[in-house]
Amino acid sequence: MDGWLDEVRWNEQGLVTAIAQDAASGQVLMLAWMNREALAETARRGEAVYWSRSRGRLWRKGEESGHVQRVVELRLDCDGDAILLRVEQAGGIACHTGRARCFFRRLDGAAWVTTDTVIESPARIYGEP
Amino acid sequence: MDGWLDEVRWNEQGLVTAIAQDAASGQVLMLAWMNREALAETARRGEAVYWSRSRGRLWRKGEESGHVQRVVELRLDCDGDAILLRVEQAGGIACHTGRARCFFRRLDGAAWVTTDTVIESPARIYGEP
Repeated sequence: MDGWLDEVRWNEQGLVTAIAQDAASGQVLMLAWMNREALAETARRGEAVYWSRSRGRLWRKGEESGHVQRVVELRLDCDGDAILLRVEQAGGIACHTGRARCFFRRLDGAAWVTTDTVIESPARIYGEP
Repeated sequence: MDGWLDEVRWNEQGLVTAIAQDAASGQVLMLAWMNREALAETARRGEAVYWSRSRGRLWRKGEESGHVQRVVELRLDCDGDAILLRVEQAGGIACHTGRARCFFRRLDGAAWVTTDTVIESPARIYGEP
């Protein structure tokens, strides 16, 4: 039953890149990583679960912020080392900075310019420390 | 003038992930990698240049196939380790298998199912050996 997980080409760290895309708007929201357990959990729950490289543990997207990603579709690329998740983004906020997406900087000449506004402040999302 | 390249968080191999998205349809086409030179070249030429990890050299997308990607927009994510390219895909084919995109397999229950048809055979794209 887990044969589909064996078709993924996990890297040396046992990870695969995962792109989350808003299923309705088509906007690319974020890039994260998954290990085998994260991908299995994502499929089982129908909500995105990533592997947090910084925290070294499974990261149920939205576990703190509430900004869960309901999975509409999971896709695998030709060489098996990238996953595409088409999702419904709760709250319309994917980024920990409180923006809709993580790709909020656009190259303008020789400078990255912030184009997207903060929808909700991180302090409000995560609670004041 | 190259300060914008320093804002990218290159990994231990000096690489960053790069997602190519069709600017018109919003379809996510492929995931590849860039080193500093590839990103600088991409910005200078206005066409996607990646770092081929398998070949160990710069890869001007379309150099063999003709399926170049004209860059409409370059974006950087919040933690600086992923690039998003919104592109115009020449020939409407991004994948070396002759399909529009590399993400042509969809998870259906416990199996990856190929959903996208081959537009042009690799033999025709790359020439018979």
